[in-house]
Amino acid sequence: MNNFRFNVRTDVRFGKGSISALPELVEKYGGKNVLLVYGGGSIRKNGIYDSIKELLSDKKVYELSGIEPNPDIEKVREGAAICKENKIDCVLAVGGGSVIDSSKVIAAAANYDGDAWTLVENSSEIGRVLPVIAVLTMAATGSEMNKNAVISDKKNNKKLGTSSLDFIPYAAICDPEYLYSLPPVQTAAGTADIMSHVFEQYFRKDTGAYISDSIAEAILKTCIKYCPVALKDPKNYEARANLMWASTLALNSLISCGKAGAWSAHPIEHELSAFYDVTHGVGLAIVTPSWMRYVMNEENVKQFSAYGRNVWGISEPDDKKCAAMAIDKTQQFFKDCGIPTTLSEIGIDDTKIDIMAEAAVKNNNLDSAFVPLKKEDVAAILRNCL
Amino acid sequence: MNNFRFNVRTDVRFGKGSISALPELVEKYGGKNVLLVYGGGSIRKNGIYDSIKELLSDKKVYELSGIEPNPDIEKVREGAAICKENKIDCVLAVGGGSVIDSSKVIAAAANYDGDAWTLVENSSEIGRVLPVIAVLTMAATGSEMNKNAVISDKKNNKKLGTSSLDFIPYAAICDPEYLYSLPPVQTAAGTADIMSHVFEQYFRKDTGAYISDSIAEAILKTCIKYCPVALKDPKNYEARANLMWASTLALNSLISCGKAGAWSAHPIEHELSAFYDVTHGVGLAIVTPSWMRYVMNEENVKQFSAYGRNVWGISEPDDKKCAAMAIDKTQQFFKDCGIPTTLSEIGIDDTKIDIMAEAAVKNNNLDSAFVPLKKEDVAAILRNCL
Repeated sequence: MNNFRFNVRTDVRFGKGSISALPELVEKYGGKNVLLVYGGGSIRKNGIYDSIKELLSDKKVYELSGIEPNPDIEKVREGAAICKENKIDCVLAVGGGSVIDSSKVIAAAANYDGDAWTLVENSSEIGRVLPVIAVLTMAATGSEMNKNAVISDKKNNKKLGTSSLDFIPYAAICDPEYLYSLPPVQTAAGTADIMSHVFEQYFRKDTGAYISDSIAEAILKTCIKYCPVALKDPKNYEARANLMWASTLALNSLISCGKAGAWSAHPIEHELSAFYDVTHGVGLAIVTPSWMRYVMNEENVKQFSAYGRNVWGISEPDDKKCAAMAIDKTQQFFKDCGIPTTLSEIGIDDTKIDIMAEAAVKNNNLDSAFVPLKKEDVAAILRNCL
Repeated sequence: MNNFRFNVRTDVRFGKGSISALPELVEKYGGKNVLLVYGGGSIRKNGIYDSIKELLSDKKVYELSGIEPNPDIEKVREGAAICKENKIDCVLAVGGGSVIDSSKVIAAAANYDGDAWTLVENSSEIGRVLPVIAVLTMAATGSEMNKNAVISDKKNNKKLGTSSLDFIPYAAICDPEYLYSLPPVQTAAGTADIMSHVFEQYFRKDTGAYISDSIAEAILKTCIKYCPVALKDPKNYEARANLMWASTLALNSLISCGKAGAWSAHPIEHELSAFYDVTHGVGLAIVTPSWMRYVMNEENVKQFSAYGRNVWGISEPDDKKCAAMAIDKTQQFFKDCGIPTTLSEIGIDDTKIDIMAEAAVKNNNLDSAFVPLKKEDVAAILRNCL
């Protein structure tokens, strides 16, 4: 087991009605001037916007709306400007990963003299960061309890991750009932994102971190058990609650304790999103099984068969067969959840595969991935998705 | 899934050599005047004491040694007096649960005018608490990352738990190599303690917190896999590391997320320790299977059979049989680890069973346990251990 640091300060308030803790949390971690960041109009329709405004009626609340999926640096610049002009004390992110990620970089850019994109390209430039408080309305990215942010520069076909311990939200309000109104594709794509986060940390060089791997398996089993329930019965509280907490635990560094190595499917998917604005979780569901099949080899086959046995309950004793069955089951699961499983289905052909492969290798450290990937490998993985 | 709050600030530095982070941590969370709290002489023999003194050579380090298992309030009073006299900035606990628990109450008593025992009996009296930094030398109680402290008043045969969010250590240094020199009985008893913490949270009213239960199972499997390895090969790093991290995760509130209810085996064992000064983990290993057999019923049998299937891999389809097998396996496991499994083996007869049963019920809220327990029930559970 590798050495590790685990340090996650987020004060999580989980469960129905937990929004009532908002005034206490803003008082404790924030201050008088709040920047409320959100996406489209959904929080206005479902009442979350109104209850927040009412709960914070004694604060001065500024607003930045219109954060889109694969959030763009332009909105971050806009948010940073509001912070600078109005002496904002904390950023209140109400939404999913796009909103929370944007809020983190806004909170850093608020205290930065240069251009916000520099903070995305070079995390060492991140200085003092305003406190971020998250109100979660999606179960997917885990951004509510981690140090990561992924921001796009759409004008230049770029999508990059940046991170800082100071990005970790001070508090997060997670109400599973907020997920009731999600369209099925978002529930499914969100689950694919959660599962992919687990895969990225689970399929790493085996360092004997058995406990982390077993917890990873617990999270995967949770996704597999409850995503179909939530799709069939969107207001099933137990399903929504388990998925919501799974999304947080999948990427708050818990399951990477004792393990190391760069990610694989996410870097590849990031290029799909950068070039085609694909829904992140959909891109992951397409890329993941293809990546698994491509990298599975003599050396790591036991990790894939362990995945098959411990997560899918496959009893096949032959490691290779068991591993292949596990990958097929993964792909079939995404399909059964209604997610496209090929690039053709979402209208992507091979035109840009080589450019995307080149960008994936250039923008990421795929040399230190589970199985190191070169440009040709990424291109092959993407071609196998067509 | 019940509503919950998860808020664990501890900055964990895990792995071999992590003691090197101590100066940084004391600087960040503590200050100039440090109270070093430890137990017997073991940290002087194994070099930990010397390396700490060297690492903190620019601080003023006061000392309180001689903390014993089932730590007594007398030493807490002594520590609090040192803090008050010397304007201590932080308490550095070097040891296992007894040392860390004592340090927490010392850190609170340092700012309290009344007697320290009042803080144990009435946690609402706890005010400002000095920062506690833990250097862990045992894998058992999880105190390094939680809000709990258990203190005894041996003169009066009392052992009580108290807790405060402000007790949560600011930082914890966990070096698995520090466990290499533990005697086998402490490795085994520590594992029984970890497993018992999991049982206390796993066997609660089923609220649909599947993810928490699955993580609990992951921790139990880790204990079952690695305790025998550590007993056979005390310097097996992988085994020590997995057990050490299991001990932290078993009681940092992670696996109780979404679940509620009072504990059962611990309250009963606390009376054994209070009346006979039994090693806590040994007492738990004796009490736990007896408690499981006593409380298993039609209503909860499926939770015990799930335990059997998911943790022990028992394939027996009949729930009752599977549950009984799982309990037998639990007891056999403790026995195989070299822990006594009856009270007679540790020289305890039935003389004080009724007094202990009465105290257990009086000192705890056993009405809201997994299966509510009255005095007669506790006495029967203890008699079945003779």
